[in-house]
Amino acid sequence: MAFTNPYSVGLDKNPANYTPLSPLTFLERAASVYPKHTSLVHGNLRYTWAETYERCRRLASALHKRGIGEGDTVAIMGFNTPAMFEAHFGVPMTGAVLHSINTRLDAPTIAFMLQHGEAKILLTDREASPAISQALKMLEQTITVIDIDDELAVGGELLGEATYEAFLADGDPAFAWQLPQDEWQAISLNYTSGTTGNPKGVVYHHRGAYLNAVNNALAWSLPKHPVYLWTLPMFHCNGWCFPWTLAAVVGTNVCLRRVDVNLIYDLIADEKVSHYCGAPTVHNMLVNAPAEVRAKKQHLVKGMIAAAPPPAAVLAAMEQNQFDITHVYGLTETYGPAVLCEWHDEWNELSLDERARMKARQGVRYHMLEALMVADPETLIPVPADGETLGEVFFRGNIVMMGYLKNEKATNEAFAGGWFHSGDLGVMHPDGYLELKDRSKDIIISGGENISTIEVENILYRHPAVLEAAVVARPDAMWGETPCAFVTLRADAPPVSEADIIEFCRNNMARFKVPKKVIFAPLPKTSTGKVQKFLLREQAKQL
Amino acid sequence: MAFTNPYSVGLDKNPANYTPLSPLTFLERAASVYPKHTSLVHGNLRYTWAETYERCRRLASALHKRGIGEGDTVAIMGFNTPAMFEAHFGVPMTGAVLHSINTRLDAPTIAFMLQHGEAKILLTDREASPAISQALKMLEQTITVIDIDDELAVGGELLGEATYEAFLADGDPAFAWQLPQDEWQAISLNYTSGTTGNPKGVVYHHRGAYLNAVNNALAWSLPKHPVYLWTLPMFHCNGWCFPWTLAAVVGTNVCLRRVDVNLIYDLIADEKVSHYCGAPTVHNMLVNAPAEVRAKKQHLVKGMIAAAPPPAAVLAAMEQNQFDITHVYGLTETYGPAVLCEWHDEWNELSLDERARMKARQGVRYHMLEALMVADPETLIPVPADGETLGEVFFRGNIVMMGYLKNEKATNEAFAGGWFHSGDLGVMHPDGYLELKDRSKDIIISGGENISTIEVENILYRHPAVLEAAVVARPDAMWGETPCAFVTLRADAPPVSEADIIEFCRNNMARFKVPKKVIFAPLPKTSTGKVQKFLLREQAKQL
Repeated sequence: MAFTNPYSVGLDKNPANYTPLSPLTFLERAASVYPKHTSLVHGNLRYTWAETYERCRRLASALHKRGIGEGDTVAIMGFNTPAMFEAHFGVPMTGAVLHSINTRLDAPTIAFMLQHGEAKILLTDREASPAISQALKMLEQTITVIDIDDELAVGGELLGEATYEAFLADGDPAFAWQLPQDEWQAISLNYTSGTTGNPKGVVYHHRGAYLNAVNNALAWSLPKHPVYLWTLPMFHCNGWCFPWTLAAVVGTNVCLRRVDVNLIYDLIADEKVSHYCGAPTVHNMLVNAPAEVRAKKQHLVKGMIAAAPPPAAVLAAMEQNQFDITHVYGLTETYGPAVLCEWHDEWNELSLDERARMKARQGVRYHMLEALMVADPETLIPVPADGETLGEVFFRGNIVMMGYLKNEKATNEAFAGGWFHSGDLGVMHPDGYLELKDRSKDIIISGGENISTIEVENILYRHPAVLEAAVVARPDAMWGETPCAFVTLRADAPPVSEADIIEFCRNNMARFKVPKKVIFAPLPKTSTGKVQKFLLREQAKQL
Repeated sequence: MAFTNPYSVGLDKNPANYTPLSPLTFLERAASVYPKHTSLVHGNLRYTWAETYERCRRLASALHKRGIGEGDTVAIMGFNTPAMFEAHFGVPMTGAVLHSINTRLDAPTIAFMLQHGEAKILLTDREASPAISQALKMLEQTITVIDIDDELAVGGELLGEATYEAFLADGDPAFAWQLPQDEWQAISLNYTSGTTGNPKGVVYHHRGAYLNAVNNALAWSLPKHPVYLWTLPMFHCNGWCFPWTLAAVVGTNVCLRRVDVNLIYDLIADEKVSHYCGAPTVHNMLVNAPAEVRAKKQHLVKGMIAAAPPPAAVLAAMEQNQFDITHVYGLTETYGPAVLCEWHDEWNELSLDERARMKARQGVRYHMLEALMVADPETLIPVPADGETLGEVFFRGNIVMMGYLKNEKATNEAFAGGWFHSGDLGVMHPDGYLELKDRSKDIIISGGENISTIEVENILYRHPAVLEAAVVARPDAMWGETPCAFVTLRADAPPVSEADIIEFCRNNMARFKVPKKVIFAPLPKTSTGKVQKFLLREQAKQL
């Protein structure tokens, strides 16, 4: 007799036992369980979770009245304000997709994104009006513009047909929003800031947003009711999914329009901030603030650091300043953080410098990322976990994007072989911890030897006078390429010469890795704070 | 031109961006990230996560060699031991379904379950051999029996063809297990202990097990590396999904074969236990232990309490004894806890008695339960949230069972109208908190008025001499039914008469609710510790 699997009969999905995963459910829960808990602080404004939920439903209702629904794109050019937070819920409540635009972009790039993403409505902060008004003139499609006329915005003008508050006033606070029919439905669109070619539109779905929102809480052992300071731009990978995490753990969002170190320390003290995220520059700024500013902070604050491998020196300084730092790593394509430097208690016994070196490693997969590997980009065979063999970093799992919008070629390339190709280079340590070494295009090949620019930079950061450092390849007749360092010095540093820096490097690395040239100059950066190495490479060529 | 949803094209599932949700991935992660962290303590045995993972793979391999695969059932009659924990991973790693049997059941019931669940292999603890050997004789199918020959088992004999350790020794520690193809695949089978008719086999899937495992961590703000004492039987709703939670947060399982209050306090002190779960009887036992036993515990321990509404008096006593108690509620059909009494900081200002009353309410939905309501069982219209109107409790969401195995009629009834019908009665408070009032069959109707037996019991528990109380209906010529109380007294209580108890009730509740009869006698309980009210009703009839 053939075996019939008894579990395959009469045990099907139905509305009682199956719901699409969506982070929107966390907002409804926060508002119904803790209606009076503070959801958001912005200047003198304070909202409760009941109010935030009501405002999100008003937004959804107002969008719905304009015909916005499944598959439509609603764009936002927003700083970290209530409107920006609310858009993460109000827009997908209609079935639409939230497209956040990097506030530092230029008009032609913004116009390209609005056009490519087919945005039907744009919510835009007054302060962003110079670039937005230009971009709107370049658009082919008609687009409804709503102004976020934030009291704390500096300058700018109103461009649209209504202010955000008037738009909300027109919405129904009891709007009966619906979950998506399918958890594999797009929730947001985030363009990568490519250095060449057109930006690619990374699409997230409700399932992934839900899972990474929860994973942030798990990865950070985030307790209920954290007070979270928005040093990270919400336009960056949807604030690493933290708007949704904050709803799940019923936290308080402390908004911040710009990274102002005085204001940050004031908010940390006044609001009793417990957590924040940011790029290394944010942390750098925090530890380099004047002593009297730093003295405002009396309690331990937990920070997540990412976006680029943090120099060991910065991590060590954070620790000395009562910041408990968790190092994470990810890409726009992985919903923000998807890799975590999980700490081992026994590492507390190591020297400060050793601890910092351990923490500077990118680490291991997030709980909800299925797999992470360092492998040969052609064969996809993992490199030996020896901490030395370079390979490309690959991701697989539910917190990897759906793909690039209207770009099947790029999507197929990114997913070739059933893994997401990050383009980042790294090594796998014997303990299973990933350490990034470079972007493939950033690697220097000198006399046939690979030189990791990050490795050289990490050593430069250990020099007491160095504030920032970036290393690129410079063409060389004899060696093919040689390392060229660009360095900025601390304000209070004693004079340092090129020879001093080279001497320091000689004492701390293999001879072939030592920069042959050191330039003292400010570092050009992208809108997300990454050093634009392609510009430095151009400069290095001219030297 | 028709609108084409741009997000519906070229953004499909593929192996890089989609993985079925399964709690098995947490084990692999715990073992690879924290290989040396203690996974499990049992008597003098201590395992690390690397060892536990290896043992689970050996188990999966050994089962696989016996032909076990997708859709097969593997039963376990196990106390809280390493084997029991490992079965939660090793069995589903083969694609098979884990059927845990309540260790307190009688042979005919066990035989029914093994037969109905179509178990092909049975892992059974030596101590359970008296009932199992009888049950095996009643079986029609052939079944492979493996003995868990635990050193800490008391008595019993070996029944099978191999011991569990020999079985594992035959398995491959590097077995290449696979995730399920579909997250909607059965992972476990748990029979409800029905008081009438045959038990029903509740089926869980990988998706729900994954989500509730994570939700336990979220609900409890469970930090990394908790030390978890197994006062809760793992056979009970798969230990409320905590075996999988412990893998996710890389905790330490402290095994416990029986609820022995001395041993519990020793383990709490020696292993620095931080968390545990249990039925009210466990907590009752903890607070009623002799002072010198209680004195062993010097630190705050967090407990989850469930299975029946805890009397306010017990909750208050727990607080006084440095136990921080979280009250949860759920059923076998909801993967264990699915409702949580979320605490509000402002409640800390209330009196101890008021705090206990707040905490005795069942509360609000788990984050990953979609919805919870109290409604009319016929119309499914929610009752007013007035804290008074009785209705049936309904659940909806991803942590509701797939259904009852081979019982479409019961499944359809349970899911009628797209909600899971719990059979429990309760009220919804104005703040959205559920409070259970009774099982529908337990309610007393006296002179046309409904009397909640739980309400009367809660007041009885406030009498200083009362250790346990249960109230049932007694037929009455005049009133239809009247309340009849069964009470056990504390060992150290002064003499108390029926009249004293009735007088106490008169001073604390409406006259019509006061028990007309009070019996001092031990309470009969089910194998899961619930009072068997149907037996008490029989007794009350005879009075």
